[in-house]
Parts: sequence; C-alpha cells; structure tokens
Amino acid sequence: MSYERPNIRDMQGYAFGEQPAQQRVIKLNTNENPYPATAAVANALAGLSVEQLRRYPQPFANGFRDVAAASHGLSRDNIIATNGGDELLRLAITTFVDVGQTLGMAEPSYSLYPVLAAIQGCQVCRIPLLDDWAMPDDFAEQLNRAGARLAFVVNPHAPTGTLLPVSRLREIARTFRGVLVIDEAYVDFIDPDQAYDAVPLVREFDNVLLLRTMSKGYSLAGLRFAYGIGATELLAPMLYKTRDSYNTDAFSQVLAAAALAAKDEAATGWAKVRSERLRVAERLRELGFDVLPSQSNFLLATVPHGVSQSRDELARTLYLGLKDQGILIRYFDQPRLGDKLRITVGTVEENDTLLSALKQLLKSR
Amino acid sequence: MSYERPNIRDMQGYAFGEQPAQQRVIKLNTNENPYPATAAVANALAGLSVEQLRRYPQPFANGFRDVAAASHGLSRDNIIATNGGDELLRLAITTFVDVGQTLGMAEPSYSLYPVLAAIQGCQVCRIPLLDDWAMPDDFAEQLNRAGARLAFVVNPHAPTGTLLPVSRLREIARTFRGVLVIDEAYVDFIDPDQAYDAVPLVREFDNVLLLRTMSKGYSLAGLRFAYGIGATELLAPMLYKTRDSYNTDAFSQVLAAAALAAKDEAATGWAKVRSERLRVAERLRELGFDVLPSQSNFLLATVPHGVSQSRDELARTLYLGLKDQGILIRYFDQPRLGDKLRITVGTVEENDTLLSALKQLLKSR
Repeated sequence: MSYERPNIRDMQGYAFGEQPAQQRVIKLNTNENPYPATAAVANALAGLSVEQLRRYPQPFANGFRDVAAASHGLSRDNIIATNGGDELLRLAITTFVDVGQTLGMAEPSYSLYPVLAAIQGCQVCRIPLLDDWAMPDDFAEQLNRAGARLAFVVNPHAPTGTLLPVSRLREIARTFRGVLVIDEAYVDFIDPDQAYDAVPLVREFDNVLLLRTMSKGYSLAGLRFAYGIGATELLAPMLYKTRDSYNTDAFSQVLAAAALAAKDEAATGWAKVRSERLRVAERLRELGFDVLPSQSNFLLATVPHGVSQSRDELARTLYLGLKDQGILIRYFDQPRLGDKLRITVGTVEENDTLLSALKQLLKSR
Repeated sequence: MSYERPNIRDMQGYAFGEQPAQQRVIKLNTNENPYPATAAVANALAGLSVEQLRRYPQPFANGFRDVAAASHGLSRDNIIATNGGDELLRLAITTFVDVGQTLGMAEPSYSLYPVLAAIQGCQVCRIPLLDDWAMPDDFAEQLNRAGARLAFVVNPHAPTGTLLPVSRLREIARTFRGVLVIDEAYVDFIDPDQAYDAVPLVREFDNVLLLRTMSKGYSLAGLRFAYGIGATELLAPMLYKTRDSYNTDAFSQVLAAAALAAKDEAATGWAKVRSERLRVAERLRELGFDVLPSQSNFLLATVPHGVSQSRDELARTLYLGLKDQGILIRYFDQPRLGDKLRITVGTVEENDTLLSALKQLLKSR
C-alpha cells in the first residue's frame, strides 16, 4: 500500500550530478571548488573534539551569524544559517508559499526549484529567458500577473554564468509583490571590477532574501552550510518557526565561521578560478565552441557545428566520450541546452586534460 | 508587510530546552548523555581532513546506511539517514500528511510534533494517556476514527520514561491505517532484560517507521545525525523525493558510522546511566517525590505534597531554585505536568549535586 501524498507520488525527485566514489575521476560536473578549504578551516578542524558534540549545538548558530553579520555590515538578526543552500530554498517555500499557490523562476534555471515546488504542492510559473539569455524586461510584471508569492533568481545565473547588475535586481524587488530570493551560490567568483554587492537591497526592501553558500567559494560542499541575508521580519518566521530546531551541527558552525572569517585567504583561490575561466573559454573558442562570458566557476559552451551529427548529438557524444575517459562534465538533456556542455572550471592540470580530450574527440568524429 | 503563509503567521515555534553558553552549568534539562562519545568516534575525528569537504558528500550517506543495516540485520534500502531526528519527523509529515489532513499523537508527548503539524498546516488528533500514563487500549481505533494519516508514538515515552512492549506496538501497527512512526530516541537506555526490539515490525508491516538518533545513546547531540528504519517502499519517497538532496554532511556520515560500529563501547555508558537512574529515583523517593519507573535517560518526578504551596507552585519553585544554583532541569507548564520535574540522569557527581540542592530547597521552604 502507498501512503504518500498524491503530489509526492506523482513527482520526480531531483536529478543529481554524478558523485563518483573513486577519487581519480576529473570532476567538472557539479561546480565544486578545485582548491581545498583554507588553512584557517584546517586549523579550526584540528581544534575540534568529540566533547563538543555531547550537547545540542547552539540552536541558531549565533557564533557563525555574528561573523557573517560583521562581514556584511549587518546585524545578527539579518542572518539565518542553514544546512546547505537547499534548506534555505526549501524554508522559503515552506514559509511563504501555500499549497496551490505559485512561485516563479526564470527558465532555464536551477533544476531543484521545481522539485521543491512539487514537494510543497505549489505551482511554478516559468518565465523564459530571452534568446541571448537576458532576463525579460517585464520579469517582475509577469510574476505579479501569475500571482507568484515568491520568485527565485540565481545570480550569477546557472547554467549560463551571466550576471544581472544590482540595479536590475533593485527594479525587480521594487516591482515584485512577493518574496524575491536571489540565489548567490556563485557570487564569490564574480570579477571584483564588477563591484557587485546586492546586500544593500536587504536594507532597502523587506522582500529580498539573499542566499550565500560555503559550498562553492569556500570549498565546503561536503560540510552543508549556507546562510540567508534578509530583513529581520522576513527572516524571523524561518528562524523561529519553520527551521528544524537544531538545523546546523556544532562542528559545521565552527568550521563555517572560521572559513568566512578568513575570506581573504579563500579569495586567492577565486582569482585563480577567474584566470582559468578566461583561459579555458578562450581555448574552447579555438576548438569551435561558442562560450558565454561567465561570472561563475563554470562555463556554458555550445558545441561546434556538426559534420555528420546534429549539435545535440555531438554534445551528447562529447559528454559520453569524456565520461569514458573519467572526465565528468554536465549535460542537460532539455530544451535550449541540448547542444551545450556545462563545464566546471578546475585546476590548470584538470582543465588541460579536459581540453586535450575534447580536442581528440572532435578530431576523431 | 508580512509575506508568511497564514498557518505560519498564526503558529508558535518550538520552545527549546535552555542551551546555556557557559560550560559550568549542570545541565540535566535536555536529556543529553553525561558521557562523551566513544574513543572510536574520537579516532574517526582525528582522521578527518578539510579535503573531504571540497566535494559534495555521498548524497544518501551510504557508508553509514551499510553500518546501520548490518547492525539491524536489514538492507541498505531499509535505512534513511537524516540531519537529526527532527528532520525525519518533518519528512514523515511532508511525505505522508497533506495540508488539512490529520496526524495523531498521545498527549502528553514530544512537544515538537504539534509544531511540525502547524508548519505543514495539518490537524493534530491528541489522544490522552490514561491516569497511570498507559496508552489507551483503543489508541489505533481512535486514530482511525479521526482519519489520521500518520501517528507518532515515542517509545520509551517522553516525558514519562515508560515503555510499551513490542507486542502492543504490533497491535497498533496492525490496526492503524496510516503510517506509525515509533520515535525511539531513548531506546539505548532500555534495560537489556526487557529484550525490547521493534525492528522486526518493519519486516511485518509496510507502515512502520522507526526513528533512531545518535544524539542520546551515542553522545552526539551536537552532530545532528539520526536514521529511520522501515520497509523499502515506505522509505523510498523520503530517500528519493522529499529529503534535501545532501541532507547529511561528509564529516557526520563518517563519525556517525564510527559511533554505530562501536556500539559495544557506547553500551558501557548506557549501563552507567541505568545504574544512576535507579539510584537517583530511589533518592528522590526518599525526599518525598513520586517517581515513575523509567526506561529512558531521564526521570519524571512528582514533587512532594506542599505545606504552604500547591504542588504546581512547589515544582516551579524547585525548578527556579535549582536554576539559581546553575542546575538546569525541565519544567513543563502544561496540564498534568505542572506538579512534575523532568530530570536528565547525569554523572554520579552531577546527580549528587542535584540531590543535595533539592534536599536543601525542600528544607528551606
């Protein structure tokens, strides 16, 4: 007998990027940082003892929240710590979107959003990006017409890597009548000369929730630690009602705080990723790929015109050919993305291996 | 402007047991284990490195699940790992109880259950325990009449510490038409001569979900790690759909597996808790308390008849008097519990300090 709710029975779960057990794989498929966490985190790890685990953790991760608040010039009440970014996304839906109501998102976007909507039993209004992947000018108006209570904007965008300026986010926040979640998972990889900082929006608007994660920029995907930034009243129901009582563990609170406090150390890795991002994009273009400029730690590359194959077929062939050689990248078998490959920027050595393999595969077709 | 769903706006969040920052407090209020985690966990901790955090964790905690499956003579598919027991309780509601539908629980019971129901927007059918805290014979029939889709039974029961035998759980599982969640948070402290083992129920019934946590028996409350045991089909929607994609972190998977694999080592601590449980109960009775026999790591004690105070007033006075001395226990200001104190069994020294303080407070009233 099935005991599931009908919406759960009928939905599909999230499709993971592959997480192979073997370490020798070159893993450029889930946008992990190619460099390990900083010495500050390693030092904090060395100071941990099991005695710290005997008691319940600080329920609100206040130690971490204070570090984050100081880092952004805000107060503790503007920060919520979560068990990875996924938890914050889920909490936003749980807290702000009733069953049967609508949430909005750009299409394409992070494929988890519709899964979370299906779990809650709410509707999804998908607003297509324009041909050049730009956000339509009337994005907020479309959301309002659909009656959306919440919208997700990932910025820099995934899977394209493009960046909306803060001025554009401000317009959306001002016009949209629901909660605007700006998923900044990749924010640390933005070029400093863009001078991007969306934090002022949480002072200006009561409906803006920024998501930051320690997974990418701080090389802590395995730790499951993220945080939200927002107005006090916006965060309060998630902090005091809908969050699991002890949602982050004692060790992760310490390690995440140490990582964030040593931001400058992590930033040396971000510079290396940016430099490799430019180099890999250039090499891919030399191989005939059309590569979007990216402000993230991945590139979205359209494969060259095929000779005997369609572009979609070639993209799939390259994806599988790389996989055969132990090189994982991401292929999305979905509209508008079927002729593209999403490639995480790795170390210089990993990128060189990838580029050589692609060159060989293209030659041998 | 408030963006919350109406059910979230109108509900109260979970009321935490106090988690003081200072370490010198004698903390007998949230049923933590008085002894630290085992050497096996400390050794596993010493082997961790930040490089293990760079990538996403194994999404299903398969390493841990295999240890748990072997420990219970089941297969990996009968185990789900969660970020603390709270997550499993929430997932059970998310997966099996629609908005507006009903879940059932004994009253009194773990005060988190109604909070989780309020978040989901479902109804709670509260079935009062009998005068001697026994479960009513027609518990399952009452659940069925209320149309409950899911019911929580905490066993050993909190806050009384009483234990339902497996035969009684079997009857409930057979009769109840919804999902029966048996919250075994305190199972490790049951006297071995009770020969309690509810695991066979998950082979017999497709509607039984057992909750085990590493928080209490394994002294890992700070780690946030628990697991569910159930039929493959019952767990599948939680494993593959409603769970956050990476709900447990890489370190906690390793540490929890090490802890569970070294169960015998942890069991020496459980024996000490049981021995102290008997001693503290006896001393409390000598002080005039009425103490329920407990199969858990806490005691529920009714305060002596007051002279100038009602029992409720005396209970509150003792709770506050202990708190003044840096000794935390739990007082529930609610029907049927207002004349009682819930006291976690601590170390011999902690228990002695508590007993002396209670003796003095009773003398001075």
